[in-house]
Amino acid sequence: MDLEWEQAVVQAERSRELARWWAAALGWVVTIDSPEEMEIRRAPEVTPGIVFVAQGGPKREHNRLHLDFRPSDQGAEVERLVGLGAAILDVGQGDVTWTVLGDPEGNEFCVLSSRPGPPPGADRS
Amino acid sequence: MDLEWEQAVVQAERSRELARWWAAALGWVVTIDSPEEMEIRRAPEVTPGIVFVAQGGPKREHNRLHLDFRPSDQGAEVERLVGLGAAILDVGQGDVTWTVLGDPEGNEFCVLSSRPGPPPGADRS
Repeated sequence: MDLEWEQAVVQAERSRELARWWAAALGWVVTIDSPEEMEIRRAPEVTPGIVFVAQGGPKREHNRLHLDFRPSDQGAEVERLVGLGAAILDVGQGDVTWTVLGDPEGNEFCVLSSRPGPPPGADRS
Repeated sequence: MDLEWEQAVVQAERSRELARWWAAALGWVVTIDSPEEMEIRRAPEVTPGIVFVAQGGPKREHNRLHLDFRPSDQGAEVERLVGLGAAILDVGQGDVTWTVLGDPEGNEFCVLSSRPGPPPGADRS
């Protein structure tokens, strides 16, 4: 068996706009830019990336798959993402350690609790 | 900005069974095994993983997000996955280079064309 996870695929109404939004949200780079698809990766050689394809009608129900991200500072990242246009969502998650957000097309994603360790910018020496 | 992609989350009807199926399909290891979730990763320190949570009713429509995997031998991998219980799906993709499969709960995923390079087992020296 020899399968490499190459990408998560997001079917979108406005795939190019959504790809650019996610590239800005994550600080990733565009690695494929074609009429059919736009792929972003953390760095050109790093997989999996996220690829956006224009095949989606309007989002109609809660996504069965979603992506989770780990910040070093949860509060700061949530504030930054909301500033970019993400929405804070209540999907019935209750009192949990993560924050549920929606991207501009309503795709749910989570900002998890801050990772352990010194805050960003702290002297690690 | 400082977000690390930690996992793709799959809401499932039978999350533990589905997690074990995917661990076998990918040759990954179980890294979280709790009543709430089961996470698998390619190796314990490698993110993103895939986490399966028991929050899903029956799958009702085409997933808006799905995962793509790159094989070294597409035909052999498709045959192996079908042997494990994956279904070959026609989602209207037409004549494309990838094969669309469904996992035991019907979640779509793709086995992409074989990666360039020598076939598995070839002497790379």
